[in-house]
Amino acid sequence: MDIIDYYKWRYATKKFNPDKKIPISDIELIKESIRLAPTSYGLQLFKVIIIENQLKKEALRKFSYNQSQVSDASHLFIFCNSTKVFEKDIDLYIENKSVSQKIPIEENKGYGDFLKKTLLNKSSEEISEWTKNQIYIALTHLMTTCASLKIDSCPIEGFDTSKYNEFLNINKKNLSAGVVAAIGYRSESDDSQHNKKVRKSFKDIFEVD
Amino acid sequence: MDIIDYYKWRYATKKFNPDKKIPISDIELIKESIRLAPTSYGLQLFKVIIIENQLKKEALRKFSYNQSQVSDASHLFIFCNSTKVFEKDIDLYIENKSVSQKIPIEENKGYGDFLKKTLLNKSSEEISEWTKNQIYIALTHLMTTCASLKIDSCPIEGFDTSKYNEFLNINKKNLSAGVVAAIGYRSESDDSQHNKKVRKSFKDIFEVD
Repeated sequence: MDIIDYYKWRYATKKFNPDKKIPISDIELIKESIRLAPTSYGLQLFKVIIIENQLKKEALRKFSYNQSQVSDASHLFIFCNSTKVFEKDIDLYIENKSVSQKIPIEENKGYGDFLKKTLLNKSSEEISEWTKNQIYIALTHLMTTCASLKIDSCPIEGFDTSKYNEFLNINKKNLSAGVVAAIGYRSESDDSQHNKKVRKSFKDIFEVD
Repeated sequence: MDIIDYYKWRYATKKFNPDKKIPISDIELIKESIRLAPTSYGLQLFKVIIIENQLKKEALRKFSYNQSQVSDASHLFIFCNSTKVFEKDIDLYIENKSVSQKIPIEENKGYGDFLKKTLLNKSSEEISEWTKNQIYIALTHLMTTCASLKIDSCPIEGFDTSKYNEFLNINKKNLSAGVVAAIGYRSESDDSQHNKKVRKSFKDIFEVD
């Protein structure tokens, strides 16, 4: 299949089969696709909390407008974006870059200073808005990789962010739950799998100049 | 190649070959991948302005910190998110859904009313933040499709939004330039193509529960 077929195959699954679990080898591929997702300046200012525990999924369902996908999916991937940038985030990136690319760390110092000057004075709101955009790239890597593995997914924005953050205990880590992906296998009784995709035509989306 | 290979192949191209143009058939596939990108409630509250005109690319380079990618790329894809939701956006979606899925429009009316109640009273800031997240999904579809076609891309956030909006004359359409993708073919002299990717390890990104 080519990439367009993956995009056509994917749909926002409404009802998962709660008994079918994703094999660990596929979870590792999905994680690798998220790890490879590009981020602004390459800083990767996010964490992903993966929930497999049934009791925890059920607890989170209560904070997600009772959507069945949250508890019936095999795994929940909670994409948490950073709400603050610290000096150490940039130092760690520069260190990682220097080691990965075999460049003496002194040669990357100027770039590190530029990043610090650019980012450390931004407000928490500015940082959150910016890092939240980026987790949508990682989310999309997950969705496409899942489709390539014939794993179903449902992106979820409808949840109580404060309740999630409290439950996951991530406020103190300067993280906030930004978007969630429920992944697993569709239930045979999920009628929405048979619905035709609804999309605008080219002329309603594109303007060519 | 599988999907992970596409993610590995892709890099943020620093220098394009200005003489190499993307064939129209590939542009159509890239457009189709953007059209298929999922959006919240399926509303597709965005437009994409595709710039091929050399003079326009050069003008936009001035509003993009003089980044060479903007004028040297074969095509610029400017993802513009909606800054407001109108009743007609929802009516058009409900109409499209009814026709695509062969459902009498009356049966979708309740859903349309729910969308109106949910969205029409939101502030321009709330709508913009929400729709901007979603164009990052479309951007990621573009990047992955490009990689599958061996087309290079560079996502660009570093540009003057107001100047772009003015140049494109989109304020009056309640749109704002949110993120840009320069696409084309790498220059042989782009040293960054040889750099090893810098990424955090699994343990620094994921928490499994």
